[in-house]
Amino acid sequence: MFPLSRLALMATTILTMTVVGCEAKDVPENKTVNHKVETTTEIAINPEIQVLADIALNGSHGYDITRSLTTQIGPRLAGTPQEANARIWAQDKFKELGFANIRTESFPVKGWARGLESATIVQPYPQNLVITALGGSVATPTGGIQAPVAYFENYEALIDAPIGSLEGKIAYVSGKMIKHRDGAGYGPANQKRRTGATEAAKRGAVAVLIRSVGTDTHRMPHTGQMRYDETVKKIPIAALSAPDADQLDRIFAMDTLNSGKIDKSKDVEIKLHLDTRDLGEKTSGNVMAEIRGSEKPDEIILIGAHLDSWDLGTGAIDDGAGVGIVMGAAKVLMESGLKPKRTIRVVLYGSEEVGLVGAFAYAKAHKDELGNHILATESDFGAGRIYAIQAGDTDANIAGVSAMAPEFSFLGIEPKQGDTNGGPDIIPLNAAGVPTVRLNQDGTDYFDLHHTPDDTFDKIDPQAMQQNVASYATLIWLASESNSNFRDK
Amino acid sequence: MFPLSRLALMATTILTMTVVGCEAKDVPENKTVNHKVETTTEIAINPEIQVLADIALNGSHGYDITRSLTTQIGPRLAGTPQEANARIWAQDKFKELGFANIRTESFPVKGWARGLESATIVQPYPQNLVITALGGSVATPTGGIQAPVAYFENYEALIDAPIGSLEGKIAYVSGKMIKHRDGAGYGPANQKRRTGATEAAKRGAVAVLIRSVGTDTHRMPHTGQMRYDETVKKIPIAALSAPDADQLDRIFAMDTLNSGKIDKSKDVEIKLHLDTRDLGEKTSGNVMAEIRGSEKPDEIILIGAHLDSWDLGTGAIDDGAGVGIVMGAAKVLMESGLKPKRTIRVVLYGSEEVGLVGAFAYAKAHKDELGNHILATESDFGAGRIYAIQAGDTDANIAGVSAMAPEFSFLGIEPKQGDTNGGPDIIPLNAAGVPTVRLNQDGTDYFDLHHTPDDTFDKIDPQAMQQNVASYATLIWLASESNSNFRDK
Repeated sequence: MFPLSRLALMATTILTMTVVGCEAKDVPENKTVNHKVETTTEIAINPEIQVLADIALNGSHGYDITRSLTTQIGPRLAGTPQEANARIWAQDKFKELGFANIRTESFPVKGWARGLESATIVQPYPQNLVITALGGSVATPTGGIQAPVAYFENYEALIDAPIGSLEGKIAYVSGKMIKHRDGAGYGPANQKRRTGATEAAKRGAVAVLIRSVGTDTHRMPHTGQMRYDETVKKIPIAALSAPDADQLDRIFAMDTLNSGKIDKSKDVEIKLHLDTRDLGEKTSGNVMAEIRGSEKPDEIILIGAHLDSWDLGTGAIDDGAGVGIVMGAAKVLMESGLKPKRTIRVVLYGSEEVGLVGAFAYAKAHKDELGNHILATESDFGAGRIYAIQAGDTDANIAGVSAMAPEFSFLGIEPKQGDTNGGPDIIPLNAAGVPTVRLNQDGTDYFDLHHTPDDTFDKIDPQAMQQNVASYATLIWLASESNSNFRDK
Repeated sequence: MFPLSRLALMATTILTMTVVGCEAKDVPENKTVNHKVETTTEIAINPEIQVLADIALNGSHGYDITRSLTTQIGPRLAGTPQEANARIWAQDKFKELGFANIRTESFPVKGWARGLESATIVQPYPQNLVITALGGSVATPTGGIQAPVAYFENYEALIDAPIGSLEGKIAYVSGKMIKHRDGAGYGPANQKRRTGATEAAKRGAVAVLIRSVGTDTHRMPHTGQMRYDETVKKIPIAALSAPDADQLDRIFAMDTLNSGKIDKSKDVEIKLHLDTRDLGEKTSGNVMAEIRGSEKPDEIILIGAHLDSWDLGTGAIDDGAGVGIVMGAAKVLMESGLKPKRTIRVVLYGSEEVGLVGAFAYAKAHKDELGNHILATESDFGAGRIYAIQAGDTDANIAGVSAMAPEFSFLGIEPKQGDTNGGPDIIPLNAAGVPTVRLNQDGTDYFDLHHTPDDTFDKIDPQAMQQNVASYATLIWLASESNSNFRDK
């Protein structure tokens, strides 16, 4: 019914696509470019996986689900009516797709609203800057804050500043994030977002501006959650878009352009206005549904994504794509007619962006059945192609995932060393001993869009979504049928 | 002093760069890519032009001037204090660079301010849209306008709607602009921007939203001047960013997704708020300076650019780059020690964006010397490389420019058929019989940034600026030395 040769050909095509990818930006302009690609590999595919792949690679379940969420709901910030609408959407969508045991589990979350926001260079060169408040930031006092700016080339330089040295000043923390396929530049670049306000306040600052944690060159500021130390004064913090950070850097360097040096003594003054509001306790929730297992229904294979998004975009790559991928993969398994032995549970977490609130709520609500959680993972790194499969950190987890890994090679997916926590919302489960797995996506361009107004549905490639859905459908089928429990005795 | 072999090699490199340009987006992903480039051409260069090219291609006058304008002034909307600051900047910069006859010629312009602006889909799927008012648009009434939306796939469809058919509605005009190297998609796409408000008002509409006239896929609305017909009711008009127009298109198609059709009967309601203000008469001005001709000082070679910009970006590609290119080219000629026979006049026009106001003011103020304007051109199409030289529409103009054209080939520039008006601000001179020439830039990506917040200095390639400056320096030298008057007797 699904001849092997046809799928083998499809697999070859996919592998070729991964190999070629002529990236103009990496090609020196005056060099001869010469790509030769051999495409003779033939890969045999397990017949059940053939069935799943044929449905996934020719269908559009994942893409359609993501389109529906990002269009019919749009932005869905934690604790807002929009996030509540997304929960209703999720319940309806699960029902429409034929899932079992559809339910929402509510939990409280701290509400926060952005409001109007603006920043203006008052001197030496008056002009507006494009900024956005970081999630959780306090507002500026009525009328805004106008103050001289202290320049720091990066987070480390801020940390090096003496206590008291920033009295009455706005601290500006520059520093670019490096682009990596696996997003490795995010952690280091993110320090200034997470704790910049506290560190600057300790030194006397009245507000903080950071260069956005992102890799694009557009006038798009990147928001994201920040944290206060409750023992330190809370000061407002906002992110500048990359071109605006470049502009501020240039202004500090304007008198020393030929040397390329920054003149930290330069008298730059900014007026900042953030109208954020703490809305107090609000309601959020996780929405979940299942394909019940035919032989071991109490054993759970959990695939998750998060339903909430930041307010600026429509949460397409973060994480509407993940929602489409995991719901779509389970739907493909249903359509295939295959009956998984274990239960497949799809969990759409609420309030991930503001601190994994839904993830901790799930771990708490399900603590008595975590021993039956066989394997857990989340799709939360955009809509790029999957290139690797990675296991958690125990011998049994590694052995179980390694046994499945060769079955993914027709999709261009190879085993990857190093353990995974399974994804952001899986961290509390991982901490409680639930085995994890991760299908690693190509995130080279992920931080161009992440947490910006530009995170919209048009950025998603339908073919990459098909490959993701095929990969997750393969994963849940293999994990359901596996003889392994993925955990050390 | 400037050995031929060195410059010939440089020219070869530039040509090669034009030929290669492996563009990933044009390469089918599963095809083998194989570029072979032969780079054996040797081009002899006129010794004076060698001198100019060596300074321009190894220097950064154009890039530095553009950096200074876009950083130290930033946005400079017609008739604002920022535009006035830009005139002071221009006078100071001309002086610093050693120009003669520096002067500003003032004229009145209608002032306009943007203010706060917002649009929200009220139903069926509540969410905010990213918009910006078109230049000159009236404000919405206090409290904004909330109304059902009438969908039009393009400007032609709006024109086809019967008079009275849009009573109480917001007209939404969709339709994508096509990308071309020469910007040929701009004219057709721009109809809805220019006269959309009047045509919709004639049919009873209360406001208009258009898909931005642009070619990007970012959350960046494109502003630009609109015009009212004084005999028709003035209604507010704003542009949606491309992703927001996609979103609105998807909402209209949401119930018919599988057919891909738009459901025009869909009940979509939007609330629009524009807080624009007519500021009455303000002052603008043209700033100009010269290199006086050594033999025929009354004969003028005019190279222009415009000093004003839209308010959203810092006017880097539109038209800070042009300002840097023409000022930089004249500075290169000064530095070379070559003495042009004719006068080189650099004109930085004010209030171009709002309707060529400075261009008409210049033509009026200089009407008595237009007979001595030998050749005129403007750099106002971004910072991309120049690929062609084009003449005006008379036999003498064509003959004069054709005689110079071969001298540009070392820069990768070839003659182009079809006449030119010389650039936007040269239109009134061209109409008065002044011969024109145009150095055509590659504008493939120009309309990605044009009139958006994203028009910032970081988008400019310093090497492309060098090639532009070298080209304009070559042009003014050759035009100064030419025996032609470029005009029919």
